[in-house]
Amino acid sequence: MDTTSIAAIATAPGTGAIGLIRVSGHDSIELVSGIFKGKDLKNASANTVHLGKILDSNDQILDEVLVTVFRSPHSYTGEDLVEISCHGSTFILQTVLNRILECGAVPAKAGEFSMRAFINGKMDLSQAEAVADLIASETQAAQKLAISQLKGGIKNEIQELRSELLHFISLLELELDFAEEDVEFADRENLNSLLQKVQQHILKLHASFDLGNAVKQGVKTVIAGRPNAGKSTLLNALLQEDRALVSDIAGTTRDTIEEILNIQGILFRLIDTAGLREAQDQIEKMGVERSMEKIKESSVLVYVFDVLEMSKEQLWKDIEKLKQTGQKLLVIANKMDLNPGIDYENYVNEILSKNQIIPCSAKNKMNLDYIKTRLYEMVLGDSKIQDHSIAINARHQDALQKSIHHINAAIEGMQSGLQSDLLAQHIRHALYHLSEISGEITNDEILGNIFGKFCIGK
Amino acid sequence: MDTTSIAAIATAPGTGAIGLIRVSGHDSIELVSGIFKGKDLKNASANTVHLGKILDSNDQILDEVLVTVFRSPHSYTGEDLVEISCHGSTFILQTVLNRILECGAVPAKAGEFSMRAFINGKMDLSQAEAVADLIASETQAAQKLAISQLKGGIKNEIQELRSELLHFISLLELELDFAEEDVEFADRENLNSLLQKVQQHILKLHASFDLGNAVKQGVKTVIAGRPNAGKSTLLNALLQEDRALVSDIAGTTRDTIEEILNIQGILFRLIDTAGLREAQDQIEKMGVERSMEKIKESSVLVYVFDVLEMSKEQLWKDIEKLKQTGQKLLVIANKMDLNPGIDYENYVNEILSKNQIIPCSAKNKMNLDYIKTRLYEMVLGDSKIQDHSIAINARHQDALQKSIHHINAAIEGMQSGLQSDLLAQHIRHALYHLSEISGEITNDEILGNIFGKFCIGK
Repeated sequence: MDTTSIAAIATAPGTGAIGLIRVSGHDSIELVSGIFKGKDLKNASANTVHLGKILDSNDQILDEVLVTVFRSPHSYTGEDLVEISCHGSTFILQTVLNRILECGAVPAKAGEFSMRAFINGKMDLSQAEAVADLIASETQAAQKLAISQLKGGIKNEIQELRSELLHFISLLELELDFAEEDVEFADRENLNSLLQKVQQHILKLHASFDLGNAVKQGVKTVIAGRPNAGKSTLLNALLQEDRALVSDIAGTTRDTIEEILNIQGILFRLIDTAGLREAQDQIEKMGVERSMEKIKESSVLVYVFDVLEMSKEQLWKDIEKLKQTGQKLLVIANKMDLNPGIDYENYVNEILSKNQIIPCSAKNKMNLDYIKTRLYEMVLGDSKIQDHSIAINARHQDALQKSIHHINAAIEGMQSGLQSDLLAQHIRHALYHLSEISGEITNDEILGNIFGKFCIGK
Repeated sequence: MDTTSIAAIATAPGTGAIGLIRVSGHDSIELVSGIFKGKDLKNASANTVHLGKILDSNDQILDEVLVTVFRSPHSYTGEDLVEISCHGSTFILQTVLNRILECGAVPAKAGEFSMRAFINGKMDLSQAEAVADLIASETQAAQKLAISQLKGGIKNEIQELRSELLHFISLLELELDFAEEDVEFADRENLNSLLQKVQQHILKLHASFDLGNAVKQGVKTVIAGRPNAGKSTLLNALLQEDRALVSDIAGTTRDTIEEILNIQGILFRLIDTAGLREAQDQIEKMGVERSMEKIKESSVLVYVFDVLEMSKEQLWKDIEKLKQTGQKLLVIANKMDLNPGIDYENYVNEILSKNQIIPCSAKNKMNLDYIKTRLYEMVLGDSKIQDHSIAINARHQDALQKSIHHINAAIEGMQSGLQSDLLAQHIRHALYHLSEISGEITNDEILGNIFGKFCIGK
């Protein structure tokens, strides 16, 4: 592989007290040593820090710096690596970086340090992805998910599945060598139960993607309902601020309003919409169309209705019309303060379970905490973020999907008495896709895709 | 002094690959050690780096980090100091910082690390100021100035002046002890020539402030002249872009246009103005008034005139009217392409020297490099930025001013036969103000003023 030294500014752009430049590659220490006035870095011990000056080609001082020397394989990239801690002016960082490039290093591409770490076996692909996630994390939940991923997470789980499958493949392939004798080294019953187990496991991982995604990207949550049901009042109450204009006049909200609500570390992207009715004018018509779009693209539908104004039959009809396949539903029976006697449990039917409907008075802030708890539970289900079994991105989900496809084919094949070699082929395919997740099997395009999304300097 | 541990994020705000947190104080190593899973930092050698994890109060991992340990007095602040290199997410940095504060560190005020460095004798005040300048530097010139300051710069020069003055004071004061015997230990002629030398030196330093300021803040440079003289064409030509609208119609420019031109590292803040004439309408009138304001507040006046349209008498009259006291002047004889035969040297008189007037065709880009060279020379004079004798800020200038005042009084006193004790007093005052520059003499208010302008984390 290419071990030319790469260099980049590793701290955030802009002015700070300190800015870091990273240089990694087989000659990185010698390279920096050549422009550094201070201790001879070439003889410096690993993991030591040295005060000195970076000089330009005329021996003029560019900056006073601290230089840290890391030696292969004990560095982030696994290569020799130098970190230069400069005064945090963009100009100075750029000047020092240019000096390093002048001496033969090449500018690091986005994620190239992490890519080298992956190639040198310092981390697997899913861990490298966790590094990017960690840097992008905005909430505790996202941070925890990334940390668990970094510690091994999905990789260890997949590793287990792989080794069991590999064992069976080797037995199946042994059968091929003795094909004429028609023996079965791989016990079919055992194999079948193993495949079932693997299938369940992968399905669970596959399903966890929704959670992983919710943690990383937030959950699109639309608040919908008829005009004057109290949607904007509910939004304001949940956010604890007067975000949306509210009035008694039906149709006050026209544009959709989007705000973020952090519930125990999960970001719910709340979207307040115009009330749904036959529009009175052109502007309202556009508002209603916009509402319908937002409902379609959200993962959670919070349907708000006015308990005084709506019969349960009307409610059911609305929900049936609005709720999308796979969408999670929470129904808010609003304005309970005006009619506390109402038995909202009456509203439960086959499409609306008891824990999907919550009595509320948005105006009086009744049951707001409960609504938040329910939103959180709906998204998380039984999962815990600390569970190491979360597929954190679409790449994982895609690989799991393909893997399941072949596991299913193998299970069906066994039932229909498929030949050993064809069975083995299905299992090999399943293995192949599982291996993609941790990066045992990969290609340049995939690597480019993954690391290209990193920031420069990582 | 207070050695409670202080902590702050030291890298620029925003998302980067890496973010740094600094902790300094007598218990900083113990404090970080308590939340760090990895090597026992308490026994770690100075200037070593350690991989590990920062834990929250429930032993959950907040981040995987590199921790560098510095031990007093060999650290930036002179105290025990720890730098924590985290994944560069704002959320993670804030979380780790909060954890450190939770354990007893206090948030560092702006510049507090540098203030401790000053108090612990790691640098003098002018060097501390250089650190702030270095971080703020946007050009090579600003960087060089700050570096020379950081290396000692003005401090060493002042130190020399001080020690000579101190020697004479001690002799003068010796005379007081023998007052009745009327002896003169301090040779008056020597003292006089010393004071003259010191005076010249301080005056030179004082004058260097303009340069220091130009390097740091840029030079306000107004381009003025009558309508249609070609001011906007000159601006565009100098900037090498079509920044200002140009046309043959007099009065095209109404608003002032400001752009930055970097000449050898000095930032000239060019201001193109509306042409000066009796205004035709209200908008033009406001434009002309604005032009006059800009001329008054600029350090350099670039007066552009059309060689076809203007006599030398008119030119002289305009210059006399516009040029401010102390302002530097450059006259551009424009549109030479239309009348190349003109002898612009004819325009030289007692208020306009030969090297202040440059023939030019802004349209044909004639002499643009020469104009830039002249602008640079006018501001820099004979100074070189590498000269260590540049007063870098208003605080220095103020101290130098006060010092000169007392040196002058001493020189006059000597001529009028002032008593030794009164002479000594003047010299002591001069010394006092010189000492303010390097911070030998200071007070909390001054320190607060200086370090309050630093960024947090430095």
